[in-house]
Amino acid sequence: MTALPHQVSGPASTFADRHIGPRSSEADRMLEVLGYPSLDKLVDLAVPASIRLDRSLNLPGALSETQVLAELRRMADRNRTAVQMIGQGYFDTFTPPVIRRNVLESPAWYTAYTPYQPEISQGRLEALLNFQTMVQDLTALDIANASLLDEASAVAEAVLLMRRSGKNKGRTVIDADTLPQTVAVVRGRAEALGFEVEIADLSAGLPDGDINGVVLQQPGASGALRDHAEVITAAKERGALVTVAADLLSLTLITAPGEQGADIAVGSAQRFGVPLFFGGPHAAYMAVRKGLERMLPGRLVGVSKDADGAPGYRLALQTREQHIRREKATSNICTAQALLAIVASMYAVYHGSEGLKEIARTTHARAVELATALEGTDAAVVHEAFFDTLLVRVPGRAAEYADKAEAAGYNLRRIDADQLGISCDETTTPEHVAAVAAVFGGSDSTSETSGSETGRSTGERIPEDLHRTSEFMTHPVFSMYRSETAMLRYLRRLSDKDLALDRTMIPLGSCTMKLNATVEMEPISWPEFASIHPYAPEAQTEGWRELITDLEERLAEITGYDRVSLQPNAGSQGELAGLLAIRGYHRSRGDENRTICLIPSSAHGTNAASAVLAGMKVVVVGTADNGNIDHDDLLAKIEQHAENLSAIMITYPSTHGVFEEDVRWVCEKVHDAGGQVYIDGANLNALVGLAQPGEFGGDVSHLNLHKTFCIPHGGGGPGVGPVAVAAHLSPFLPGDANRDIADDGGPDAEGGTPVSGSMYGSAGVLPISWAYIALMGAEGLTSATAHALLTANYVASRLTDHFPVLYTGVQGLVAHECILDLRPLTAATGVTAEDVAKRLIDYGFHAPTLSFPVAGTLMVEPTESEDLTELDRFIDAMIAIKAEIDCVASGEFPLEESPLRQAPHTAQLLVSDEWTQAYSRERAAYPLRSLRHDKYFPPVRRIDGAHGDRNLICSCPPIEAFEDEE
Amino acid sequence: MTALPHQVSGPASTFADRHIGPRSSEADRMLEVLGYPSLDKLVDLAVPASIRLDRSLNLPGALSETQVLAELRRMADRNRTAVQMIGQGYFDTFTPPVIRRNVLESPAWYTAYTPYQPEISQGRLEALLNFQTMVQDLTALDIANASLLDEASAVAEAVLLMRRSGKNKGRTVIDADTLPQTVAVVRGRAEALGFEVEIADLSAGLPDGDINGVVLQQPGASGALRDHAEVITAAKERGALVTVAADLLSLTLITAPGEQGADIAVGSAQRFGVPLFFGGPHAAYMAVRKGLERMLPGRLVGVSKDADGAPGYRLALQTREQHIRREKATSNICTAQALLAIVASMYAVYHGSEGLKEIARTTHARAVELATALEGTDAAVVHEAFFDTLLVRVPGRAAEYADKAEAAGYNLRRIDADQLGISCDETTTPEHVAAVAAVFGGSDSTSETSGSETGRSTGERIPEDLHRTSEFMTHPVFSMYRSETAMLRYLRRLSDKDLALDRTMIPLGSCTMKLNATVEMEPISWPEFASIHPYAPEAQTEGWRELITDLEERLAEITGYDRVSLQPNAGSQGELAGLLAIRGYHRSRGDENRTICLIPSSAHGTNAASAVLAGMKVVVVGTADNGNIDHDDLLAKIEQHAENLSAIMITYPSTHGVFEEDVRWVCEKVHDAGGQVYIDGANLNALVGLAQPGEFGGDVSHLNLHKTFCIPHGGGGPGVGPVAVAAHLSPFLPGDANRDIADDGGPDAEGGTPVSGSMYGSAGVLPISWAYIALMGAEGLTSATAHALLTANYVASRLTDHFPVLYTGVQGLVAHECILDLRPLTAATGVTAEDVAKRLIDYGFHAPTLSFPVAGTLMVEPTESEDLTELDRFIDAMIAIKAEIDCVASGEFPLEESPLRQAPHTAQLLVSDEWTQAYSRERAAYPLRSLRHDKYFPPVRRIDGAHGDRNLICSCPPIEAFEDEE
Repeated sequence: MTALPHQVSGPASTFADRHIGPRSSEADRMLEVLGYPSLDKLVDLAVPASIRLDRSLNLPGALSETQVLAELRRMADRNRTAVQMIGQGYFDTFTPPVIRRNVLESPAWYTAYTPYQPEISQGRLEALLNFQTMVQDLTALDIANASLLDEASAVAEAVLLMRRSGKNKGRTVIDADTLPQTVAVVRGRAEALGFEVEIADLSAGLPDGDINGVVLQQPGASGALRDHAEVITAAKERGALVTVAADLLSLTLITAPGEQGADIAVGSAQRFGVPLFFGGPHAAYMAVRKGLERMLPGRLVGVSKDADGAPGYRLALQTREQHIRREKATSNICTAQALLAIVASMYAVYHGSEGLKEIARTTHARAVELATALEGTDAAVVHEAFFDTLLVRVPGRAAEYADKAEAAGYNLRRIDADQLGISCDETTTPEHVAAVAAVFGGSDSTSETSGSETGRSTGERIPEDLHRTSEFMTHPVFSMYRSETAMLRYLRRLSDKDLALDRTMIPLGSCTMKLNATVEMEPISWPEFASIHPYAPEAQTEGWRELITDLEERLAEITGYDRVSLQPNAGSQGELAGLLAIRGYHRSRGDENRTICLIPSSAHGTNAASAVLAGMKVVVVGTADNGNIDHDDLLAKIEQHAENLSAIMITYPSTHGVFEEDVRWVCEKVHDAGGQVYIDGANLNALVGLAQPGEFGGDVSHLNLHKTFCIPHGGGGPGVGPVAVAAHLSPFLPGDANRDIADDGGPDAEGGTPVSGSMYGSAGVLPISWAYIALMGAEGLTSATAHALLTANYVASRLTDHFPVLYTGVQGLVAHECILDLRPLTAATGVTAEDVAKRLIDYGFHAPTLSFPVAGTLMVEPTESEDLTELDRFIDAMIAIKAEIDCVASGEFPLEESPLRQAPHTAQLLVSDEWTQAYSRERAAYPLRSLRHDKYFPPVRRIDGAHGDRNLICSCPPIEAFEDEE
Repeated sequence: MTALPHQVSGPASTFADRHIGPRSSEADRMLEVLGYPSLDKLVDLAVPASIRLDRSLNLPGALSETQVLAELRRMADRNRTAVQMIGQGYFDTFTPPVIRRNVLESPAWYTAYTPYQPEISQGRLEALLNFQTMVQDLTALDIANASLLDEASAVAEAVLLMRRSGKNKGRTVIDADTLPQTVAVVRGRAEALGFEVEIADLSAGLPDGDINGVVLQQPGASGALRDHAEVITAAKERGALVTVAADLLSLTLITAPGEQGADIAVGSAQRFGVPLFFGGPHAAYMAVRKGLERMLPGRLVGVSKDADGAPGYRLALQTREQHIRREKATSNICTAQALLAIVASMYAVYHGSEGLKEIARTTHARAVELATALEGTDAAVVHEAFFDTLLVRVPGRAAEYADKAEAAGYNLRRIDADQLGISCDETTTPEHVAAVAAVFGGSDSTSETSGSETGRSTGERIPEDLHRTSEFMTHPVFSMYRSETAMLRYLRRLSDKDLALDRTMIPLGSCTMKLNATVEMEPISWPEFASIHPYAPEAQTEGWRELITDLEERLAEITGYDRVSLQPNAGSQGELAGLLAIRGYHRSRGDENRTICLIPSSAHGTNAASAVLAGMKVVVVGTADNGNIDHDDLLAKIEQHAENLSAIMITYPSTHGVFEEDVRWVCEKVHDAGGQVYIDGANLNALVGLAQPGEFGGDVSHLNLHKTFCIPHGGGGPGVGPVAVAAHLSPFLPGDANRDIADDGGPDAEGGTPVSGSMYGSAGVLPISWAYIALMGAEGLTSATAHALLTANYVASRLTDHFPVLYTGVQGLVAHECILDLRPLTAATGVTAEDVAKRLIDYGFHAPTLSFPVAGTLMVEPTESEDLTELDRFIDAMIAIKAEIDCVASGEFPLEESPLRQAPHTAQLLVSDEWTQAYSRERAAYPLRSLRHDKYFPPVRRIDGAHGDRNLICSCPPIEAFEDEE
């Protein structure tokens, strides 16, 4: 057993010392409480010897913050920025600096967790509700969700929604003018689930036969604007559902999908202020007509009311979701792109409907100017009607012109030998138009057009019939914050309502809410990373690809696998990609029958949902009394399904926060039966540097870079869920959805099913994880893991007398998290885990994970980033709450009138002239003295979720709703 | 009269629309209230026709935000970064990213005002108290202030302090090994005040004769470390005071000035995490021994208690200050470098004493390694004892070697033909050492030393006798926030205590708290601007100089003057520089007798203080009943002093917020008598685009870029106070304090007295003002001015029935601010302007300017950036407060028990179980319904300033002080 690297003593001079919360003296005090002589000893006992790595990770030595910034700068400088006119679903945009600095670069926003605890999330919930309202208004549909992962996967979700909801069970028909990467992703999903997708030119009418659903793109991938009214009507007459993949900016000027009868609209909100980011993260959207809302994938913000009857926001209809419905779930989307949806929503708030229209009109005007300028040149503009994109025919000379444009600093879309696409956006200038026209032999009339906004644009190319006449974004929120001062204050006011990591620990079990260091975050804003188009020529993306390859290799070393793909842009997509790799592997060997996926009952619900989406059948394996996998049941299930066994999905350490001693044995048994082992990397923060899933039995894992590797949660995304595989699965890693378009497959192109429209998914945030690994080095990473075990065991040890720790390993130790069992107290007093979670708000804390994986419990994961002061503050709060529970038990106050059930307490309640509670105001607000100097007041009292679900409202409520009734 | 440019109608598509708060529809509503048909009409009537500019400003057309960022990027790219080893008081440093992002780039910190209202400033006051504590500990002196402007002017302030306080009235002796720019600045100040400064090599002992004070530098400008104990003792025995200009980082390792008996220590805190910024802004410091504290220039944070007896911070000993003592003031410093002092203090908090020592040891080790590496080369290291800087002799070849180093990417200090200075800092690496040694023929042993932190450094060159043995920074604040998570939360917690522009309007009359737009702020962090040494070779600073020249020219156009100097780094320094220019002009004409400076009684106190420092005698001109300058008194004073008249200093519009109709006449009368006209630009925000001080009679003005031109106030600095002059004064603009060192004077070198150690003062923040002017263009700037007049008149009009507006112009209009007269209400009810100011905190507002320029009044300046919603929120609050005053008048509650006198109310008080106030909790907390949804709770109740001054404590109080006494 190698000795653990120790924290450098003395001054905090390395980054690891900044990332890791406890000082070495604090670690010593914690070890003393636990009764261990050293951190080494604790780790030796906590981690089973059978899986313990007997060497250091083979990673480059830790760099300083200065060195990491220099390295990232070097890589950034290997990228080349250009005027991005490729389009194809990704457009350059101008992020208003006030939004960039105060959302994208603000810890108050980016360190926030998913708003499952609505009382401390009203700010981000309002921002997401604005997003939904904006999408609903622009698409003219009834209900929009709070973002999806990218346009391609959003269309796939829409197709699945249509399959679930449609009356007809026939095939899915996709219009030929749909973005190619979308088609590739949808095809992959359909293939796994075994349904038929037909690509057809729907401008010629619908094909014959049974059709479940139809997908149209507006504007088309070719840039063509078509009036889809007829085909939509025809489809509906034939009982099919209709999805329109629509560009939000164009919808400010053209008839909305909802107005033409579409059931579903999907698309990307990227061009609403979100940088290109080499492909992601960007918020996709989905809106549906009334009646389909319970089928909506992803998260949905709704309006409900709090215990005092005041309006309050919370996630609505959670019963739809995969973590509850498991294999009956209809989607596996958890993390989406909340932070980017917020950026897009604020862009809309800042511009308002008039501003968006003006941006759209200017964008359109540039495209018209370009079409005019191309008249008389070699380049024939194919479509008469377009919004921002021209399809240009230059028979046999497409590559030549694209090269010429590239040399001049302009990226065009290379479609085939004869055709190019040229897209305009809000950053396109008359000079750009003139320069591109000049490439094709148009007169370079820069001097003529420059300075003249009207210039040559004498007409427009949006057909009269398609002109939008309806209003949108009429809610006051879209007109109240037009000055920068007003926007700045709105952003501050919203974020002040919320608790994020910049104010308190967020001890969420399984979520690994650790430090998102500034030095890791800063480079993502650099233009050389942020403004690269995902389909830019390879010569322009050398820096990106160096970083990505490097990160993939380091993650492979950390996990003990052979290959890693960074394409999945969320854990759910990593699961899907990993399971599709298993599926591909079995099928490549002729084992089409191997479709059974064993999943322990304690697993994340998403596991089961992903398995179903990968075409597998879920068989649940039971849990033994000690919380571990029930060996007998496992053997029985393996035997029962031996012939058809595809895989087992296990989480390690287990979702119970325990290092199961027998994980190697489990893996062996499954392998022996011909199955593959999927190890969910959700809990990798307990393993890095100590054990490798790829070494102790896994064939594939997905990781969560937004947990273990420091990408911030962003209030519910972005995420990155890389999939790591052993060599035999590597041919089945996700391929490039755009590869048909690229000149050649190149070394990066994989053969597997793509799960995202861009090869590297949420590429834009990968510098964060790269920086983290580079800053920590092998020693720092291993030390972080050891400290994560230390803090969890310290909390468990200090709290177990007050709240029993449900499961531990054979040594009586937990891994990196612990489950506090509230059920005995609930049985005795009625006080629930939820009451404790809500009461913690009054103590200034975000609650631990509530009722997962065991109902009636709280799961606590402190991570290595919390220092002893903060751990003790949390422990003190929990002990004080236990004393409050004792008061209920002793009858000092009835449960319903207790500060626990009444929690959380708003300032408004606490300051009210009438005080009718059974306890004093000070007891309510300041149960601990320390709170007097640092007090968070939640903006609402406990939210009534059920009320909101019964009365579903998912758009901004009228201002009057917030007026008091007095 | 030219028509005013109108706001672009429709969408907010230009930056001016984002900068200006009111939408055009809101402006229309405000004009309706005021009874004017148009903004043009209002402006025509408000601004006297006699001074109205009859043309548009000749400025380039407004750029978009994208274009401005591109232009700034282009200029930044004309600068060249290098390894900065020039030293000479400026060192490269590593700003911890968590501090950069969450202080320097955080609106919560940078948009804050000077903490004159302590109850809403506890966060920044604590940060500044940390700064003072750090300085006191490092210097081992009793009391430090909360920063000064730069080291050179800080030494000048120390010299003046010694002259005021010293027993001997003899000359000031400055050691020859003092930084040359410091000597230049001190000499200029001495020359103006007519006292003698002698430069002498004090290592040879003190010169004979009467000595008032002695200045020593540690380490010396040459890098030499000397034991100053003997010379200090000798000086004190001869009755002189002693100032040591000391490098804070070196003080972690060497004996502190206070330990050697020095009375005063001064220096720069730049290398504590503050970027080089091409010379500034950086925080200078001053610490003094007990007994001198009432002589300290600048601001001083002290500990006092609030109305409930809880500890609270506030600015102490304000009776020392120039705005109160006017011509009796001992310094004119107002704005200092608060934001940079906060950065430096947080750097110290983050590193702690051990961390700082480690940085100092590493820095020293690099210097020792370099000295070792230079052995056997041409370069002779002159001093045996040094800290970070080597003086190197290379007879006749200094330029050659410096050029060679420069070509290799290393900037050295060019001292003369034979000598170079080479300074190490925390960013110096073994590779740098090896490369520099190689320049002088040392073996390039990069491969040998790289990776080895200990490398060649086998000894140290700090004499044993000088080793520091005392502890410092032992307060817990310097050890509690060592992890990034802990630091992030500390910064958030502090800023949450405060009200800044990111939460509320700050309607401070004469302070122009307008938007500090993000797009203006972002570029100051770019390394190509931030990491340039002020004495870097000109070839490396082309971008900076282009920007500066451009800004000077645009400011000249805006003000109607011929030349502008950006050197003064605060308004006070601009005043001084302007008055010194006048002084220089008179003296150049043989008019040494012209020393009388006329100042209206309503002037900023700083005017008088600056005049005295410029060697002038102040004669006060009275105010007429209408608030204007008393013509009769003016004529009398002119006549009385005609022979000796140097200047008049007037503010326009007047400090009463009124456009005086006769300003041309005043200027003419002074000119007729041979005097010069100084027009204080504090109120320039009412003039830009409408009138030019240089055109209607001024010979010189200083501007405040941190008012009119959008540099944020930063909680009390940085400031920039350019001085603008007519052609005949331009030879007397401030010169380059470092010019003796430069190869040649060059076109930038001016002949006048330098007021800062670097040619362009607070250069680092100049991109902000450059961007503002470029974004607005002539039309936008003029529109901003018109809107500033509109908002002020709207507030005045809406409030005058409740609080009479004291002064208006002949049309009944105010300029850009208005004085609300509380005196009648005070007389009737006892409620004071201060009560209103404190009660406004409960309404969520920063108070207007209190009792300036007229005691017992509030002066309100809304600026153009506040929209109608925010203006109305303020007006509603003021009207509600008037109703509360009426309740005192009617006897509903006695004054002492009224919510006005009891204000502000903390959450702790409002939630307390015992409520003994004469009014209800809700009335205290939520006097307006809107507050229920957006409520700021101040962390302390009203602070007792007098108590703190009687019991002066100016360092961090023990933690126990914050424990409740229950």
